[in-house]
Amino acid sequence: MATTRRGGRGRRPGKQDTRGAILASARDVFATHGYDRASVRQIAAAAGVDAALVHHYFGTKERLFQEVLAVPIAPEELLPQVFSGGPDGIPEALVRAFLSVWEHPVTGPAMVGFLRTAASHGSESRLFRDYFAARILRSVGAQLEGQVPADELPFRVSLVASQMIGLALTRYVLKFDGLAPVEPDRIVHALTPTVARYLFGELDETVTDPFTPEDASA
Amino acid sequence: MATTRRGGRGRRPGKQDTRGAILASARDVFATHGYDRASVRQIAAAAGVDAALVHHYFGTKERLFQEVLAVPIAPEELLPQVFSGGPDGIPEALVRAFLSVWEHPVTGPAMVGFLRTAASHGSESRLFRDYFAARILRSVGAQLEGQVPADELPFRVSLVASQMIGLALTRYVLKFDGLAPVEPDRIVHALTPTVARYLFGELDETVTDPFTPEDASA
Repeated sequence: MATTRRGGRGRRPGKQDTRGAILASARDVFATHGYDRASVRQIAAAAGVDAALVHHYFGTKERLFQEVLAVPIAPEELLPQVFSGGPDGIPEALVRAFLSVWEHPVTGPAMVGFLRTAASHGSESRLFRDYFAARILRSVGAQLEGQVPADELPFRVSLVASQMIGLALTRYVLKFDGLAPVEPDRIVHALTPTVARYLFGELDETVTDPFTPEDASA
Repeated sequence: MATTRRGGRGRRPGKQDTRGAILASARDVFATHGYDRASVRQIAAAAGVDAALVHHYFGTKERLFQEVLAVPIAPEELLPQVFSGGPDGIPEALVRAFLSVWEHPVTGPAMVGFLRTAASHGSESRLFRDYFAARILRSVGAQLEGQVPADELPFRVSLVASQMIGLALTRYVLKFDGLAPVEPDRIVHALTPTVARYLFGELDETVTDPFTPEDASA
C-alpha cells in the first residue's frame, strides 16, 4: 500500500500504485498456488483490479511471472538459438547461452541477485522452481522428445540445471578462485561433455571410474 | 554486546558473553582479512581478551572458523574415508560422502541453512569460499598430488565443487521435482563420472558432442 515513486516509466503515482499492487498480489498468488495453478483472474481479484488491467500492464501470465521474479532475460529469447543446431549441438549451445547471460554486464549482476534471492528465501525458491519447471524444462523437453524416454526428462534436465546453477553460484556468487578468473571457453569445454551425458548418455551404470574399465574397484 | 543466555554449555552469563564476543570478533576479522591472513591474536585483540582464552574456548583457528560458519560437520571427519580407496575410488566416495551429509536428518537441514546464508550474504560468501579453499581444496589437492598437474588443481576441484554445490542447491534447497525425490544411488551413478572427469579427465578438448565423434557440428 505504500506509494513508491521511484523508478519505472509512468510518473503518475496512481499508475505506479496499481502496477505495484498487481505485482505484490502476483507474488503472493504465485508463491501460494504455484505458477501452474495461479490465474490472472485470481491475481487481479487479490489486487482489487480488473483482469484486463493486469493484461494491460503485464501482457501474459508468463510475462507477469517473469516480472515478479525480476528475471533479467526471458528464456524464450535464448532457447531458439540453443536449439538451432539440432540435438547434437544442444549441450555446447546451452552452456554458451547460459554463460552469455552471466557474463553480460547488465544481465550478469541481475542474475546474481536473482540466484541469491532464490537460494535464500523459501517462497522465492518455490517461484524459482516453478519458473524452471514451467518454462525451461518444458522447452528443452519438447526439443528432446524422441531422443530420450519422456519419463527420464525431468531427471536429466534437472541434472543439467544442477551443474549450470552450481557453476553460476561458485563462479559468479561465491567467486571461487579456481573458477572466477577462468576464460569462458575453458568453462564451455569442461561443462559441455557433462551436459551431453546428462541429456543423452547412460546415467544408471554402476561404473565407479570410467578411466579404469577393468573394474579395479571390486 | 547484547547478552545471549540461550543455548550452549556453561550457563554463567560471563562465559557466554566472552565466548560470544570472541565469535563476533572472529566473524569480523575473518570476513575482513580472509581466513589465511586472520590470526587468533588479532581476533583476541578485537574481542578484548587474551589469545589464550580464544584457544581455551575454541582450540585452533580452524575450529574457530568452523564455529563462525556454523558448519555442521568437519571435512576432516569425512575426507579420510573419501581417500581410503586410493585415487580411483575418490569420485564415487566423494559423491557418497557429500550426499551422506545432506541426507542426514541433523546435518542435512543445517547444511541447507549454511548454503542459504553463504549464497545470500556477501561476507558469508567470502567465508564460505575461504573455508572451501583453506580446507577442502587443500586436502583433496594433497591427495591428488602427482595424479594431475598442480596448477590445474584449483580449476579441477572447483569444477567438482560447482557440481556438488549445484546438486545440493537444486535437490535440497530449491527442491526441483526432477531431483528431490530421486534415490541417492541414482544421484551417485549420475554424478560419479562427472566428478571423475573433472578430477582426472581431459577438460580442454573442443569436442562439442562426445556421442558423435565424426564432427557432426562442423
